[in-house]
Amino acid sequence: MSGDRETITLAEARELALAALTRHGCDKANAEAVASVMLAAEADRAESHGLFRLPGYVASLKSGKVDGRAKPAVSRPAPGIVRVDGKLGFAPLAIEMGRAPLVEAARSQGVAALALVRIHHFAALWPEVEALAAHGLAALACTCATPMVAPAGGTKPFFGTNPLAFAFPRHDAPPVVFDQASAAMARGDVTIHAREGKPVPPGTGVGPDGQPTTDPAEVLKGAQLPFGGYKGSNIALMIELLAGALIGEVFSPESGRSGPADGGPPVGGELIIALDPERFGAGTWGERVESFLAEMLEQPGVRLPGARRHLNRAETGETGVYVPRALLAEIRDLAGVG
Amino acid sequence: MSGDRETITLAEARELALAALTRHGCDKANAEAVASVMLAAEADRAESHGLFRLPGYVASLKSGKVDGRAKPAVSRPAPGIVRVDGKLGFAPLAIEMGRAPLVEAARSQGVAALALVRIHHFAALWPEVEALAAHGLAALACTCATPMVAPAGGTKPFFGTNPLAFAFPRHDAPPVVFDQASAAMARGDVTIHAREGKPVPPGTGVGPDGQPTTDPAEVLKGAQLPFGGYKGSNIALMIELLAGALIGEVFSPESGRSGPADGGPPVGGELIIALDPERFGAGTWGERVESFLAEMLEQPGVRLPGARRHLNRAETGETGVYVPRALLAEIRDLAGVG
Repeated sequence: MSGDRETITLAEARELALAALTRHGCDKANAEAVASVMLAAEADRAESHGLFRLPGYVASLKSGKVDGRAKPAVSRPAPGIVRVDGKLGFAPLAIEMGRAPLVEAARSQGVAALALVRIHHFAALWPEVEALAAHGLAALACTCATPMVAPAGGTKPFFGTNPLAFAFPRHDAPPVVFDQASAAMARGDVTIHAREGKPVPPGTGVGPDGQPTTDPAEVLKGAQLPFGGYKGSNIALMIELLAGALIGEVFSPESGRSGPADGGPPVGGELIIALDPERFGAGTWGERVESFLAEMLEQPGVRLPGARRHLNRAETGETGVYVPRALLAEIRDLAGVG
Repeated sequence: MSGDRETITLAEARELALAALTRHGCDKANAEAVASVMLAAEADRAESHGLFRLPGYVASLKSGKVDGRAKPAVSRPAPGIVRVDGKLGFAPLAIEMGRAPLVEAARSQGVAALALVRIHHFAALWPEVEALAAHGLAALACTCATPMVAPAGGTKPFFGTNPLAFAFPRHDAPPVVFDQASAAMARGDVTIHAREGKPVPPGTGVGPDGQPTTDPAEVLKGAQLPFGGYKGSNIALMIELLAGALIGEVFSPESGRSGPADGGPPVGGELIIALDPERFGAGTWGERVESFLAEMLEQPGVRLPGARRHLNRAETGETGVYVPRALLAEIRDLAGVG
């Protein structure tokens, strides 16, 4: 696109990511799992979860916080629960290893959960719910980490940006899927506003003095606010209890007090719930979902969540991706090439 | 309180509700189940789900839409799924009958779901999730019905107000619990604003012309808006897919096109998911939740969701409830007394 970017193919991007990760301590299985989710985001032009994350992944390998050779352990504490101990590695390999048992459990039990503990999650959540929708399952996922968001009524960071992701399968079409922070604005977007000197909308956050501000630099020093006031705050609280308390993992404030602040992902947990429409007696759900969505999209201005990413995905296999030159130089350096 | 209200005990209120329901066609089991959730709301001073609902319940019995003698049928289509066919009766008896099998399923499977179909739900959702938390389970519940809310970007009613309720158990304390519409404002509150001639906040809804308005009467003729913009809209969409498509029930637009508009509850479905912390390996979750909540409440201005209702509940057993005289006269008339 613009002159400060360079076009590379997805295959080139993947090779760079693999080289950088293995060079800094990942084994093949972990490097491939991490690269896959990073490249999936890049392919969807969800840049803030694409190659942009690679320096953070590498930083947390360098600091020794994350074990790039972790071998996650899968167990089945109950018929409807798959538990994966990530052994303090990155999340993607743990999620991959839990997926097949989760799909099997959801199909046999009707509903099943994947509890991921001792992982370092640094990616979007839509890859895991989309992968389950590809198996015909509805799926929810949530995770909490690193306090950045004040509870409704408060002014100090306490919740993580606590994303909730959801996917519902469709016949012959990509799933309905969303993945949204319970913060009013994603952390990355606040950072980008700060870098570009652009004000953020009212309601995004408060400064260190606890006063509302539209200055993103002040928000980064103070606290972000939840989306939709107390209702978004309740969603954030729910996610702390599900991805923290329920599965025996840390809450965001605890996560924030642990491990080096190396710019990489903190330790924490994730909960994924998968539900099988075929076992619920959903009948002709495929056709019914299509007519429902068609009626929804009759309203001008209404969009299907995830649709933009899926359109991008269909393009980038051909066009490649446009990576900022400064980032690409950094990544080539990390990969020991060019 | 004020002169236009009368104090009655909860026992008196319950007798009135039972009399009105049985007089208009409910059998004992249905009348008691409906009265219990209505009185639970009244006891918590959640008036809009208390006796205020009784005329609507009766209207839907009178119109013949709801079968007051429905005998819900419980089945177990999968180890993790309890399904209750409400046989076109009110929801409360169906929920009661599904509860024990759901608790058993959640404990044995780790996670389980209750799919309620062919019910008429006219109550808050917190009674069902609080009841599960009382058994030591985390629980989510959602339902959709009657199009009232425009999808983000749109201007016409499509989603129901689609509430999401959540409860997480605590040791020696009422659960953490919320129950929130995915509309920016609850329908009842818009109605009350209209009756009192008070403007609603910007973002509550649009008029029939599709333009934003703070006139509640225009919003009632037009469409409500979701809370928190597209994120609340996504939550509403998720609820349509879970409480509609997944369990083979109607979506809100379909619900709105079915049955007489008698002022009572439309037909629809509800999904409840229950998760057992003990099976997830949550360890000492009870203590950890307490210290987490204590840290959250250290911030001035932060409140625990559900806490106000639980305080009210502790009072109303002694004080009784203050019912508007006009409503009380109507209810006594429906009950054939006074």
